This record gives sequence, structure tokens and C-alpha cells, in this order.
Amino acid sequence: MEEQPTAIPPVPLALEGSAILHQMFRVRWADWKAVSARTQNEILDDAVQAFTAMEAEGSAQTGLFSLLGHKGDLMLVHFRPTFDAVNEAELQVARLGLSDFLEPTTSYVSVVELGLYEASIHLYRSLAEQGLHPDTAEWRAAVEKELAQKREAMAGRVWPSIPARRYLSFYPMDKKRGEDKNWYQLSISTRQQMMRAHGMIGRRYAGQVTQIISGSIGFDDWEWGVDLFADDPLVFKKLVYEMRFDEASAAYGLFGSFYLGLRFPAAELGSLLNGRAPAFRQE
Amino acid sequence: MEEQPTAIPPVPLALEGSAILHQMFRVRWADWKAVSARTQNEILDDAVQAFTAMEAEGSAQTGLFSLLGHKGDLMLVHFRPTFDAVNEAELQVARLGLSDFLEPTTSYVSVVELGLYEASIHLYRSLAEQGLHPDTAEWRAAVEKELAQKREAMAGRVWPSIPARRYLSFYPMDKKRGEDKNWYQLSISTRQQMMRAHGMIGRRYAGQVTQIISGSIGFDDWEWGVDLFADDPLVFKKLVYEMRFDEASAAYGLFGSFYLGLRFPAAELGSLLNGRAPAFRQE
Amino acid sequence: MEEQPTAIPPVPLALEGSAILHQMFRVRWADWKAVSARTQNEILDDAVQAFTAMEAEGSAQTGLFSLLGHKGDLMLVHFRPTFDAVNEAELQVARLGLSDFLEPTTSYVSVVELGLYEASIHLYRSLAEQGLHPDTAEWRAAVEKELAQKREAMAGRVWPSIPARRYLSFYPMDKKRGEDKNWYQLSISTRQQMMRAHGMIGRRYAGQVTQIISGSIGFDDWEWGVDLFADDPLVFKKLVYEMRFDEASAAYGLFGSFYLGLRFPAAELGSLLNGRAPAFRQE
Amino acid sequence: MEEQPTAIPPVPLALEGSAILHQMFRVRWADWKAVSARTQNEILDDAVQAFTAMEAEGSAQTGLFSLLGHKGDLMLVHFRPTFDAVNEAELQVARLGLSDFLEPTTSYVSVVELGLYEASIHLYRSLAEQGLHPDTAEWRAAVEKELAQKREAMAGRVWPSIPARRYLSFYPMDKKRGEDKNWYQLSISTRQQMMRAHGMIGRRYAGQVTQIISGSIGFDDWEWGVDLFADDPLVFKKLVYEMRFDEASAAYGLFGSFYLGLRFPAAELGSLLNGRAPAFRQE
Amino acid sequence: MEEQPTAIPPVPLALEGSAILHQMFRVRWADWKAVSARTQNEILDDAVQAFTAMEAEGSAQTGLFSLLGHKGDLMLVHFRPTFDAVNEAELQVARLGLSDFLEPTTSYVSVVELGLYEASIHLYRSLAEQGLHPDTAEWRAAVEKELAQKREAMAGRVWPSIPARRYLSFYPMDKKRGEDKNWYQLSISTRQQMMRAHGMIGRRYAGQVTQIISGSIGFDDWEWGVDLFADDPLVFKKLVYEMRFDEASAAYGLFGSFYLGLRFPAAELGSLLNGRAPAFRQE
Repeated sequence: MEEQPTAIPPVPLALEGSAILHQMFRVRWADWKAVSARTQNEILDDAVQAFTAMEAEGSAQTGLFSLLGHKGDLMLVHFRPTFDAVNEAELQVARLGLSDFLEPTTSYVSVVELGLYEASIHLYRSLAEQGLHPDTAEWRAAVEKELAQKREAMAGRVWPSIPARRYLSFYPMDKKRGEDKNWYQLSISTRQQMMRAHGMIGRRYAGQVTQIISGSIGFDDWEWGVDLFADDPLVFKKLVYEMRFDEASAAYGLFGSFYLGLRFPAAELGSLLNGRAPAFRQE
Repeated sequence: MEEQPTAIPPVPLALEGSAILHQMFRVRWADWKAVSARTQNEILDDAVQAFTAMEAEGSAQTGLFSLLGHKGDLMLVHFRPTFDAVNEAELQVARLGLSDFLEPTTSYVSVVELGLYEASIHLYRSLAEQGLHPDTAEWRAAVEKELAQKREAMAGRVWPSIPARRYLSFYPMDKKRGEDKNWYQLSISTRQQMMRAHGMIGRRYAGQVTQIISGSIGFDDWEWGVDLFADDPLVFKKLVYEMRFDEASAAYGLFGSFYLGLRFPAAELGSLLNGRAPAFRQE
Repeated sequence: MEEQPTAIPPVPLALEGSAILHQMFRVRWADWKAVSARTQNEILDDAVQAFTAMEAEGSAQTGLFSLLGHKGDLMLVHFRPTFDAVNEAELQVARLGLSDFLEPTTSYVSVVELGLYEASIHLYRSLAEQGLHPDTAEWRAAVEKELAQKREAMAGRVWPSIPARRYLSFYPMDKKRGEDKNWYQLSISTRQQMMRAHGMIGRRYAGQVTQIISGSIGFDDWEWGVDLFADDPLVFKKLVYEMRFDEASAAYGLFGSFYLGLRFPAAELGSLLNGRAPAFRQE
Repeated sequence: MEEQPTAIPPVPLALEGSAILHQMFRVRWADWKAVSARTQNEILDDAVQAFTAMEAEGSAQTGLFSLLGHKGDLMLVHFRPTFDAVNEAELQVARLGLSDFLEPTTSYVSVVELGLYEASIHLYRSLAEQGLHPDTAEWRAAVEKELAQKREAMAGRVWPSIPARRYLSFYPMDKKRGEDKNWYQLSISTRQQMMRAHGMIGRRYAGQVTQIISGSIGFDDWEWGVDLFADDPLVFKKLVYEMRFDEASAAYGLFGSFYLGLRFPAAELGSLLNGRAPAFRQE
Repeated sequence: MEEQPTAIPPVPLALEGSAILHQMFRVRWADWKAVSARTQNEILDDAVQAFTAMEAEGSAQTGLFSLLGHKGDLMLVHFRPTFDAVNEAELQVARLGLSDFLEPTTSYVSVVELGLYEASIHLYRSLAEQGLHPDTAEWRAAVEKELAQKREAMAGRVWPSIPARRYLSFYPMDKKRGEDKNWYQLSISTRQQMMRAHGMIGRRYAGQVTQIISGSIGFDDWEWGVDLFADDPLVFKKLVYEMRFDEASAAYGLFGSFYLGLRFPAAELGSLLNGRAPAFRQE
């Protein structure tokens, strides 16, 4: 482990925002098709009405996605102000008649997170130069002040709407804690330099991909969730592949399952359940 | 492996208390909704009555939690004086009418454990200075005496009530036994220093998080279970993330699945089963 | 990590073509046999008609395979111009009456990919000699021009028909990112030399095996999918075994599950569902 | 790998005895409760009668255990003279009416094994000093003679009854074959010294824990099974934790799932199936 | 990696023979017992008739095994001349009435393989001395000639009958490709020496164990399958344990699940399905 002045803590600051739940479901096709057209319509009407309300933009938005492959047919992505509201959203889905025809396959729980590596190092160094030590009340007050400013300045980024793009690639990830390569035993400045190089790649794709990072340490099985939104799904492959050569990913990134979804409006839910790919915009 | 005087055993002392069972269940929503309102009410009445008795504070308390995500909808956390009482609790749940609508997804078996690294080292050194060897009856008697004193002094901590806070983060963990980094081949004093640094972080969150550590070596698949209770779930992320940079976790911690739950009183069970997030306090 | 002139980026260029979905299904034999012969025939007629249309050669072709072992009885391999069309294909299958008797076991999502290691290095070096830097617009324009030429020249290879051979071996793979052996931290020229040696083996089997590589970074859980088509299945074993001694595979290849299938025309679907191995050519 | 005289083979001798099958079952509570009391009684009577015969002490004894947690509700541990008799036992259970309400979750197949590290080394050295080589008939005859003597002397230990204690901790284990730490590449004397130190810990718990080791190389997925029987379940934690610091476990032990059970007589089966913890002694 | 003259290829020659499918099934006991005795008899008669034909010795033989533990109740091992015939066999099983009561748990696909390490090295050296290079037509012709001779001489071994012994231990395996210990980066002569030492152990058990190795690279998830047949199942433990100390296994062997089965004739199938261990010879 690299030597660090003890007045520079290893933990970067971060801002948190929306609580998120990704829910992946398989449709129980045989059961669904066994139901009469009339009952199907009633169930669909209820579901469309509920999801239409939930998909309205704001701090409590839900996005619907048609998933590719056996991992699921339908993915719901709930952004909510609190975990209580997330729990309310999943129970609201459970009480829909439609949920009798949905088999949950997996899910992911996280909160939108904005990592502040550069600002943290800048602040930590400045406080160290002022002779403040992390154990002191002054130090903590200075940090809280900085966080409060950032929180206000970046409210739009930590309480985002779901980007209105057709394709979503979602995956969870960890930073490696190997016997030799251990992210959590690198100095904060080494990590910051890697994250900066990593971010540079992202920036080159800025127009093509909207990225939302969420933290899930303490909430779910991986450390972070990554949601990439794009109009052209090939961009996911290019971006993630290019990043894989970057030291932060090449040596320290561990990746979970990838989920590829196609966004659709609630009004298109009937298409999906009738076995037709739902359109991006309602027809 | 570091050299140790043979009179200093590598195993720290610990106190044990309540036997614990975490039970995670998915609700079989379609089956539940297919039941008549009247039958639902009868089943609910029985369950609420049983859980109300079980959730009363004391040495045999059960907590109810609404889980986020597909890992389960309901988590029951049973604290009991013995494993026999734990078995009784799980069978009592099994014989409820409600259990026909609950699918067990996973569980965890452990006992509340208070690690005594500092006291152990202090005692072991003192006994070594007195010329006592771990293989002797005197040595064992001195250890038993110390444990008896601690057991009495710390009864409240090893036989705890379930902290009355809204959020719970539960996860199991191991200490790594890698080919190079092997916790169990470090000296007890090296481990104690790491555990102390680890504990310092916990102490800074003391007002915000109540932590209950339980041991499960010999009982379940991981070595320890960790239950964190808080009024603000973001604190879980901050605490666990900060600890991850700590050598004890960074180099030696292995973590299982994380379960995030919202505590609710038995009387709110009907809300959950009607598809509404149960309140923390009964309305 | 080996030193590289910074004007030589580590990421090789690639061409992308058809979006692919592999779907593996188990037949629910008991349910299927419980259906009357007449209903079976109706369901089969619908399915054969749909699959006959889908298996026609072109940019939107579907191949049917009888799988060996418990991983599945039927594999559908969909090649489509877009992921939207892939989603349409899987939903079209879902709405067939037949799908009520198919249990999805797994799947794989990818796009046909033609790696351009040699051309990339040649181009990158040439651009570096011209004094162009990867961050510049000129550099990017030159790359786009090269890609456009290749795309046209190699359209047949990135938009392939499904080779008309009896046997298919499909498996996903990764390049290792170990603590010591890390593909993504090798220089592009080292990787290119290994890929070339790897390709030499493939070339010796050229007449016997048709290989289609697809990329799935950002789409599915592995980095690439490999489809090998042959008239003699023993050739799969020989080829994959020989490649395993090659440094690119020996030191850096990680392999997922292998699926062995026998191609059959849609018109032979009835044989399979009647418990008889479907012929390669319709009888 | 350490150098060894070639006349000292690396493989320690062992005695084998009872064939063992551990069967873990979940009770299908909803199905069971749906059956009329009268039918339940008939099914129970049959099962109690069968298990009462099977639990009688001897060379073909079966023990019943109430399991904690979701891994199962009922564990049957069959000790039999042969694998044929084990197969007969599991099929006898399968044909009980009760088995319709039992869902097998997992199992373990092994034979009681008594490792003879010390005797092996002693014998191997003695034979080497006599100039005998392992490839010779004389050498083999001497080994067979030793084994025959041990077999007779230790018959009670390799054909044990199931210890009459309330608690059982069962888990499978392997010896590590890591790239660096490889049990199977240590010399037999190094292994013997570690096993001896390991055994010393066990001996200190002798009064509190009865241990039965069984071998499963060639039979099941791990190399050994460990059954610990005690009157106080906390002893499992203390013993297994203490052993974990021992080099044989710390550096070379790999552990599977742990199963914690409460022994009960067949006559108490009705308690379990009525949702009450079965008593250790029949009431 | 060790230096090798380039004229000595790293890949040993091998002979291939019978295509094999191992099928593991659980019996759906509750469903089976719910069927009337008369229907059971009809289903059994059909199955016994089909399996009696399939178990006749020859190039298309099927063996029936009663499996121990939860991995399955029945294992079918099909040896066939081609993968098409294997597919026919599994579909023939699927169309039996019995298959409605069999739940496939797992399977394994492979072909009988006879590795020719010693002959390969001998031939490769001889060709190198003749100045022939692996890339030449002469070299290939010489290899093909050798293979043709071996194929004829060893036809009995690559197209074997299923050995008529009571016990079977089946398991799949890989050769390790670790970051440090990598089988596929050893020279062919180093591997040959290890395989020879490995084979010496097998030879000592020759009378007691019949071993059939099958290759599954390109066909299934592991590189090889191993079938051991014996009259005394303890021999499996002794043989596999002894081999584990051998460098080829100790350092380079990776093992999958082990399946232990008892062979029985088709005519004994009724015993199994009536909950009685089937006899080895028909009664």
C-alpha cells in the first residue's frame, strides 16, 4: 500500500440522489395466453394506466424496457426519492393483475451517485494545508459545507429523469480486491488519476451515451450499478470495450451480468404482451 | 506466518448470546390474490396475532421487514435464547396459513457474538507473564473467569433487542484465506490492530448505526453475519464504503449477498399483502 | 504493462454486422404429449409455417437446431439487421402456440464482429508517422474512412447467412484479466501477434469449419460468442483443442458453456416433437 | 514440491467402514396441510413405523434431524454396510407416502474413513529400512497385513452408531490445490505433522464433540464430509473456529455448505409435521 | 513456457470413437405414485422393452444406473456411433411414457478418446529427424497413416461395450490454465511424462477398474469425462485419491461433480420405480 499523509483520508466524497430499483421479469406466456381476451384487456388497461402515471418525468419516474434474451421479457426501472417510495413502487406492481403473469428473475437496488474524486482531493489537500485533521469538527464542517454546495449545484444530475433514448445497457460492477491488485489499497490520488483517465473516455462518447452511475454498497451484491442509455446500441459495445483497456477497468474492474433493453412507453405494453416488439414512441 | 510466542494462542475469545435466524420469503402473489377476501382476512388475522406476540421485546423477539428487490418480499429475523427456540420459531411460521403463500428464498443461521480481541491479548499476555501455558488447567480457569465476568457485564449486548430503526442492511462475510493474504495466518496482535482500526470507523457512526455481529462458523456458509440498523439507509453505504478502505476489509474481507429491509410492525402485515409499503409505526 | 507510443491506441478497430440471439429451450414433453394429436398438429402447422419463413436466407435468417443433453432440446439462432428485429423475432416465437411447450433455459445476445487487429496497427502506425494524434479530428476522419472501406469490402462477412452445415458448436468466451496475466494490459502489437497465430490455426481448418465471431461486450455476460459450423462434429474438438495450446487461448482465454446442436429445416420440427431426431435435409 | 525418498509413497493408508448418505429435504407445507387429518395420520403412521425400524442402532442405522433454515426442514442420515444398502434406504424413503411431501434439496454420499497418517509413515519407513519397494508384492503384503490388523482393532470406529447427541453440524471439505499452496504436493511427513496438530485441537474437545469423518473422493463433489455431534451447539463454533487457525485448515482447508440439525426420534416426526420443534427424547 | 523445437507441435494425437451421452434424471415420485397400477405397468412395459433393446451390447449400447443422492435417481449412459444416433437415443427416451415422470437434472456430451502422447512424441521426433515440418503435406500424410493404423489396432478400445460391472463413478475434468500453473503451456514431453506417471497408477488398478476416457472439448463444459467401472466401489476412492497426489492431477487437474451409480438391467427398472434397489443381475 502506498504511503499517504494521514491527513488525506482514502475515501472520496460522493453525492447521493434518487433511489433506484431495476426489476427484471419473465412473462408467463402460457398462463397469459390462456386468459380470455376480455380479461387480458382488463388486466392490460389497469397496468397501462398505472405505468402511464409512473412513467411521467419527475423525481418518481419509472421506465419500461423490453429485454433481450432469457434474462427477462420486461424490465422496470424505478427512480424514486426514497427507498420507501421504491418499496411502494414494487408493491404497487405486485398488486397489479398483470403481476400474476410476471416471474421475477432478478433485480438491483442502488442510489444515484456522483463520485467527487477531484473535488475531494482538492479539498482534503486544502484542509491539510490549513492544518485541519479529519478527526476534528472543523474538518467535518468544511466537508459538509462543500457537499452542500455540490448537492445544490448538481441536483439535476443526482435526481435525473430517465434519459429518453431507445436502448439501455445495465450492469453491476465491483472494484477488485485481489491478493495483488487491490483498488482499496491504492492511494486516493492514484485512484483519482485512473478515474480521470476513465472519465476522459466517457466524455468522448458524451453525445452518444447518457450514463447514470448508482452506488449499491450496503444495499445489493455489487458495489455499483451502471446504466448506459443510447440511440444506437452499438455504442455500448464500443464504449465498454474501449474502457476495458483503461487501467481502472482492465486491472480493477469486475463486471456482473449485462441486461440489454429497449425502452417503450406504457401505452405500448399491449404490443409486448401480444408478442410484438413495442415501439419507442407510441403509435 | 508471523512468529508468535507459543504461550499466546491465535484464537481470540468471544462471548455468545442470542441464536438468530434470518428468513427471506417471496410472496406467491398470484396464489394469494386468488384467495377470497374473507379467507385472506382469516389468514392475516392468525399471522398478525402470531407475529404480534413474537415481536414483543425480550430474549425471544422477531422482527418483520419488507425486503427490496427479487431476493424476497418479507424477511423475518428471529432472536431466540437457543437453537431449539429458533427451530420452534421457524416451524411456528411454517404452520401458519400464511406460509402457504410464502416461498423461502434463503436464510441465515448464527449467534450474536462479541469479539474480545483486546481483552484476549491483554489476558493472554498477562497469563504468559505469570508463566501459565494454554495447555494447563490454571490457564483455562483464568480464561473462564474472565469470560464469566465479561458475560455478565455485557449481557445486554449479547442478548439484544432488535433495534427499533426503520432500515436494516444484512450481509454475511468471511475473512480471506488466500494463497498470499490469509487472515488466519496473521498474528493475533496484527489482527487486533486491524480490528481496532476497523472498530474506530464503526464508532464514528455509533449514533447513526446500530450494529449486531453474529458468528456462524459451524452453523452456516459464511463465518459471520452483520446486521446494521439505521434511520437513514444512506448511512449503510457510507459506513460500509468507508470500512472497505480499511485493511481488515480491503485485504481480508469477503462479502456475501446484501439484503435491504424496511422494518414494520406485525399489525402492518396487511398493508404489505395488499401491495402497499408497510409503515414503520402502526397507523 | 508494456510501453507504447501514446499515438498508438490500445483498442483495435472492428466491424459490426448482424445482431444475433441464441435461444435455448427445453421441450415440456409431458405437457406436449398430453395435448390431442389434432391440437398438436395445429400448433405444429403454425410453428412450421412461421419458422419456414424465418429460416429463409437473407439478412433476417433463423436457424433451428436439435440440442444434445439437458441444456435444451431446441436452439433457435436468429440473425437480424437490428436488435429491434431480434426483439421482434423472440416475441414472434413467444406468441406461437408452440412456446407454451418450450421452457427457456438460456440465451445469448451479440452482434457479428470482424476484428481488424492487423489493419488497425497498420493504420495507427501510418497515422502516427503522419504526425496525427488520436485526439484529433483528422485522425478520426482517417479511421472512419478506413472503416467505411472495410465495411463495404467485407459486407458479406458481417452480414452472413447461417452456414448450411449439420453441426453447430456455440460457446461464449472472455479474455482473462488476471492479477498477473491480463489481456487488456498487453500492447496492441503483442495481442495482434497472438491473434495472428490463433488465426493461423483457424485457417488450416477453413474448409472444414465455418466460424462466426460475435461481440457481446455491453450486451451479454461474456465478451464474445463463437459459432462453429461443420459437417463433421469431431472437427470442433480438434480445432478447439489445438487452439487451446495457442498462447491467446492457453494463457488468456476463458470459456463459458458449450452447446452442441444439429441443424434441421423447419419442416422437420414435427420429427423432433414426435421424439425422432430431425433430419438435416427435409425428407 | 519437497523431495521424498521414492520408497515413501505420498498416499496415507486409510480404513473404510459404513457407507453414508445425508439427505436434505424441504417439507412441501402447503401440500401437506391441504391433506385431510386422517390421510396425514396414515402417512405419518407409515413413516414413523419405517423410520423407527431404520433408527435402531446397528450397522444400518438412520438418524432424523430437524434442519435450521431454508436448506431443508428434515435431514436423514443413513449409515449402511454398503452402497447397495444406501440405495435401498433412499428408495425405501422414496416409496413412503411421506416422500410426496418432501422436496430433496441436496445430499451427500461418502464412507466412514479413518486416516492413518502416523501409522502409514511408521510403516513406510520401516518397510524402506527393510529395503522393500512399494512396487513389490512383499511391500503390498506388509501393507495389507497392517490394514487388516487396524481394521479389526478399529471396527467400532469405522462402523459407528450415530452418536446420541442433540445437535449435528455437517459440512463437506477439500484440501486446497492452489497454484502456490497445494496440499497434494506437500510431503507425507509435512502433512502428517499438520494433521497431528489439527488432531490435537479435536482431542481437547473430545468429551464435548463426537466427530465422524467420511471420505467422498470418487463418490461426491468434495473430498471429505465432516459430522460433528454435540450436546451444546456453541461447541461447533468454538471447535471449527479454533481449527481454522491451524495450518491444515488455515492454508489448506476449503469448506462447503454447513448444515445444522437437531436430532429427534422417529416417534417425534409428527411434531415436526405439525409445525412444532421435535423433542430430542420422545415425550 | 518451455522452449520447443518448432517442428514438434504441442498437440498430442488422439483417436476418437463412440459418441456418449450421460443423462441424469430425478423420478417425479409423487406423480408416478399417483398413477394407477395398470397405467404404471403399461408405461413400465414400454420402457423395459425399449431399454432392453438399447442395452444389448454393440456399437449402440445404453446402460442403466441407479444413482445415489439428490443428483438423480436414474442415469442413462448412451454409447452410439454418431452424435445423430445420440440425439435419436435421447429423443427416443423423451417419447417414452416414462419420460413424463423423469426430471432431467444434468447430462454430459463427449466422445470416447484415446490419447496418444507417447506415440505422438515418437512420431513427431521421427518426422523432425526426417526433416519434415508440420506445415507440409508429407508431414500430414505421415500422421494420417499413423492414425489409421492405430485406429484399426485399437478399434475395440474406442468403440467399447459398457463394462459389465456393478458400480460406476462418472466425473468431468479440466486441465488447469492458471496464471502460474498452466497445462497448456507445458512442453509436450513434460506433459507426456506426467501422463505416463499418471497412467502407471491406473495400470496398477487395471484388474479392479475399467476406465473409459471421453473428450468433450467443443461439445460440453469440461474438457474430458471419466467413467470408472468396478465391482467394488471403494476402489474408486482409492484410485482417485492416489492419482490426486500425482503431479498431473495435483497441480493441473480440475474436477467437476461426481456421480455414483449402480448398474442394473432394464428388466429391473420396475424395482427402482417401486422403490426397491434394482439388482445387478435380473432375478
